[in-house]
Amino acid sequence: MTVIPDDLKAALIAAAHAAADVARVETLAYFRRSDLEAATKEDHRFDPVTEADRAAERAMRAVLARLRPEDAILGEEYGRSEGTSGLTWVLDPIDGTRGYISGTPVWGVLVSVAGPDGHPLFGLIDQPYIGERFAGGLGVAEVTGPLGRQTLACRAARPLSGATLFTTFPEVGTPADAGAFARVSRAARLTRYGADCYAYALVAAGQIDLVIEAGLQPYDIHAPIAVIEAAGGLVTDWQGGPARDGGRVLAAANAAIHGEAMALLNA
Amino acid sequence: MTVIPDDLKAALIAAAHAAADVARVETLAYFRRSDLEAATKEDHRFDPVTEADRAAERAMRAVLARLRPEDAILGEEYGRSEGTSGLTWVLDPIDGTRGYISGTPVWGVLVSVAGPDGHPLFGLIDQPYIGERFAGGLGVAEVTGPLGRQTLACRAARPLSGATLFTTFPEVGTPADAGAFARVSRAARLTRYGADCYAYALVAAGQIDLVIEAGLQPYDIHAPIAVIEAAGGLVTDWQGGPARDGGRVLAAANAAIHGEAMALLNA
Repeated sequence: MTVIPDDLKAALIAAAHAAADVARVETLAYFRRSDLEAATKEDHRFDPVTEADRAAERAMRAVLARLRPEDAILGEEYGRSEGTSGLTWVLDPIDGTRGYISGTPVWGVLVSVAGPDGHPLFGLIDQPYIGERFAGGLGVAEVTGPLGRQTLACRAARPLSGATLFTTFPEVGTPADAGAFARVSRAARLTRYGADCYAYALVAAGQIDLVIEAGLQPYDIHAPIAVIEAAGGLVTDWQGGPARDGGRVLAAANAAIHGEAMALLNA
Repeated sequence: MTVIPDDLKAALIAAAHAAADVARVETLAYFRRSDLEAATKEDHRFDPVTEADRAAERAMRAVLARLRPEDAILGEEYGRSEGTSGLTWVLDPIDGTRGYISGTPVWGVLVSVAGPDGHPLFGLIDQPYIGERFAGGLGVAEVTGPLGRQTLACRAARPLSGATLFTTFPEVGTPADAGAFARVSRAARLTRYGADCYAYALVAAGQIDLVIEAGLQPYDIHAPIAVIEAAGGLVTDWQGGPARDGGRVLAAANAAIHGEAMALLNA
């Protein structure tokens, strides 16, 4: 990867925060409103898309069009816009729409920027209701929120038998995926559900050891990759390859527990 | 129930807030610390008890001893202290210790006070990290937090097929309990996991329709009963009787969905 000049780093970091700032306003404008109605996007699965989702992505795109007009954008709601710089912004205005329409504080705004090789360079996981933002990449690894500013650092290695594992749904993915997940879950000390993108932030914050999910889209995982890698962790697919195209994802605090989990996923 | 004078109401509400305030400080002092170690309280189940849990209950007991010296106290960590007033404070310093040691923002401090008949008169569900407090009873039904002060009001009736259901663990309780839960879950639009006491707050805030759990202790459910009843909802056991002794609990936004869920639980 080519070296990125400091002024470009600063511009990318500033643009990411500016995009997350406007998404925070748009998502909070609808959060916990009693008249919020969710539409069903797919026939086979309940996946609500809200006005907040669309409004937040439009606002982020407007910010990036102004600050980074030559970059491409891939967003959950409005697809791909081409660019000429080789850089691509990847946006998920509300990751965890089911958590959002239920009023929980574990959905998030995901903003990241990928280099010419497609790998995330910098990412933000923002939780607007808490006012908490996890940032990673380009030399940054920090969270700002109710406890102030803190450095992000993944946990040191511990055996899987003492580890905490998160996923969003107990069903995970296909029945085979669920079986693979269950092998890891049975070996872990504690399994928790329902945290959406917040689970990846907890890996980066050194609070938990593993997140295992299936059926992800690229915009679900780009920002978590940047934040977790910056904190010293790893995010791959279940075979140890790149996770940036989504699908089946294994996020780990360190290489030791990543290996232990991957062996059970593929047993 | 006898009429409660206004000055006693005000004193009880003030004491509850004072107790929750000190618990907030104690629980946050340990939250997300990397050196936090959890002990295993029971052999058959992972149920960590932290120093924060104990410190928070001690602090609340000290506040109540000063402000309400004649009331009894029942706390998760230090058991029962007798009183002479007929009123009993019920305290859970950290409800959701597994969520707490994982760094999530859905654990809570539960503070409530029960009358001579044992039913909760007033309760608080406090989330210290978010800085959010749900209060209900004695004429109060409100949340204060990131969006300011808002009135709590449960949702109007909607069919179970359009409803959102929460529980903490997919296993729920015994295999028979889990089977009963699954009947409701299959009929609901959306089932979410892992929210601990925050799920009850979301019923009171009009965001979700149902919470179903099993194996609860009295200190897990007293404050949620007060908050949800104040917001217009119901909390009973799975047979429709009082839930204040814990066990199997059904919290509902309104009588219609309560009846629909109870029929399936007992089918």
